[in-house]
Amino acid sequence: MKNQFIGTSSIAYGVPVMIMGTGSVVGKNEGAGPLGDCFDEVGLEVDDMFGADSWEKAESMLQTKAVEKTLEKVELKAKDVRYLFAGDLLGQSIASSFGIMDFEIPWFGLFGACSTSGEALILASMAIAGGFADTTMALTSSHFASAQKEFRFPLEYGGQRPLYASWTVTGSAGFVLQSSEFEGASKRARNCFDVNIGITGVTPGKIVDYGIKDSFNMGCAMAPAAAWTIATNLKDFGRRVEDYDAIITGDLGSIGQEALYTLLEQEQIDIRDRHYDCGVLMYDSEKQDVHAGGSGCGCAACVLSAYLLKRLESGEWKRILFVPTGALLNKTSFNEGQNVPGIAHGVVIERI
Amino acid sequence: MKNQFIGTSSIAYGVPVMIMGTGSVVGKNEGAGPLGDCFDEVGLEVDDMFGADSWEKAESMLQTKAVEKTLEKVELKAKDVRYLFAGDLLGQSIASSFGIMDFEIPWFGLFGACSTSGEALILASMAIAGGFADTTMALTSSHFASAQKEFRFPLEYGGQRPLYASWTVTGSAGFVLQSSEFEGASKRARNCFDVNIGITGVTPGKIVDYGIKDSFNMGCAMAPAAAWTIATNLKDFGRRVEDYDAIITGDLGSIGQEALYTLLEQEQIDIRDRHYDCGVLMYDSEKQDVHAGGSGCGCAACVLSAYLLKRLESGEWKRILFVPTGALLNKTSFNEGQNVPGIAHGVVIERI
Repeated sequence: MKNQFIGTSSIAYGVPVMIMGTGSVVGKNEGAGPLGDCFDEVGLEVDDMFGADSWEKAESMLQTKAVEKTLEKVELKAKDVRYLFAGDLLGQSIASSFGIMDFEIPWFGLFGACSTSGEALILASMAIAGGFADTTMALTSSHFASAQKEFRFPLEYGGQRPLYASWTVTGSAGFVLQSSEFEGASKRARNCFDVNIGITGVTPGKIVDYGIKDSFNMGCAMAPAAAWTIATNLKDFGRRVEDYDAIITGDLGSIGQEALYTLLEQEQIDIRDRHYDCGVLMYDSEKQDVHAGGSGCGCAACVLSAYLLKRLESGEWKRILFVPTGALLNKTSFNEGQNVPGIAHGVVIERI
Repeated sequence: MKNQFIGTSSIAYGVPVMIMGTGSVVGKNEGAGPLGDCFDEVGLEVDDMFGADSWEKAESMLQTKAVEKTLEKVELKAKDVRYLFAGDLLGQSIASSFGIMDFEIPWFGLFGACSTSGEALILASMAIAGGFADTTMALTSSHFASAQKEFRFPLEYGGQRPLYASWTVTGSAGFVLQSSEFEGASKRARNCFDVNIGITGVTPGKIVDYGIKDSFNMGCAMAPAAAWTIATNLKDFGRRVEDYDAIITGDLGSIGQEALYTLLEQEQIDIRDRHYDCGVLMYDSEKQDVHAGGSGCGCAACVLSAYLLKRLESGEWKRILFVPTGALLNKTSFNEGQNVPGIAHGVVIERI
């Protein structure tokens, strides 16, 4: 069957692209949260340095470990992966470039802010579905301390953050993709799941700007983009909300998700009974002082890797819509008074 | 015919992806160079502000203008473009996100440093060749002043640059792609060329680190990556140097290209008689004070748009290998003593 582009922005793959395996590495704080037992590796040090001597190098180390862990689980070597699609939040993607360099896998550097895990899964699955590769990997990371330094102030400054701010997740996760009709000279990966889990379609997002100027209020900056991508996905595929067992946004947090419900209501779409937000799932909001919840490129990636895919594997869910969300800004754009627009990329993942 | 992945990192498209049209906008300094008459628009102000009130917004304006110019030439509206693949040099891709937002085209944000135009052309052509879209656009930009501020010092500081440093090109160029076997509900673009020019294959690059620590010496930092991509392309496609009428690197400049020749010699490859470098082509090194030549995401893109494609159109060249080159660093990685690795993406463009 041929790939088809449908509606405004969606693609239905002719043949599902299988997620053969995934690996995740997170920091101590993430390990102390409700999903703590689900990750493949949890840092033990309170400063999450992972043996590096700077925050940026620590984030690169997270990516290195996530690639190693993922390859180990699918029983492949780096040379078996044809293309790597990876990005992070740091300027000029340095967490990725220095983190993946030694694997020598041809690399597509991506930036979609905290939606990058969605962008990476879309492009890595397109590469498989288009017949451009037999094996690809999607990878993203974020680190609380490197993100604070990049976007706000170094931790040493001791700046106070408002309660509606989110907490950048320290973590990285990788995903190895192959076609369900795998052929090729290279090695078939070991399927880490008891069932076949695959990407059957995608809805790349567009930039949506609602005029939010407060860079701490990421949830509200990204909610309009998430609403657009969810509504567009449903329309393009001719599906109802009930056709998904779960619709999962990236890191809207507790405040952003309320904004999302309100915006979708205007289009007669109600996802409340099956909506989850990775930023909310990541921490225990009662016991952990993370304000509005988790955020960052690593947030949605680690929750998908360690938790969401397992609910598909267990059979609890059959089909989900995964919608990582990103806020588009940098320190300069914020200081120059620019808005904080959002973008969200949709990925349909199901048991196949 | 089906798409095929061949050798280490290359893809041969089953059906060529046509470059239907392209538009470029550059600054005053670029307009004063030897290619000045070739660009679609040249800024007239000495400060290249393009009506904006900051360097970053000026770069966004370059992207806006490049999209408008490109769409105008191919006689399409923004809504006819299904996906936009765009990136720039600024932290968190803000030149792109703010420059393209109003077109409301679903966006894949990319970062490959100055090789981003190659990365964008590869992914935009893959989207066409894979049957994921009928029309895509690739777009990149750079701006001398925003890049100096991002990577070194604001211009107002008056910092001195060594003679082996390159000069970031102020410019942006867009490329509209459609399949040579176009079908679909949307509009066929007007072919801006008198002949059919298309992308027939690609060689995505990997990161190559030769231990360069001097961030001014971009040419030498990127030359090893360019050498890898050129050698890999020749091997993967089973071609000799003579099978290309020209092999064009992005922005190695006068010093980096000597390093490239030396590295390729070690593999018994001599490209001297058909090698061009966009950074060298952009300026008149005798009359313009640009040191080692042009660089930046906009450099290779604008030279391809305004000059290289025209030499294919005129029949002077039949097939070229376009290899934009990028140096992977940011201000923090440099200050923390990290190396400056390189990456280069290869695109095979020919009359079809």
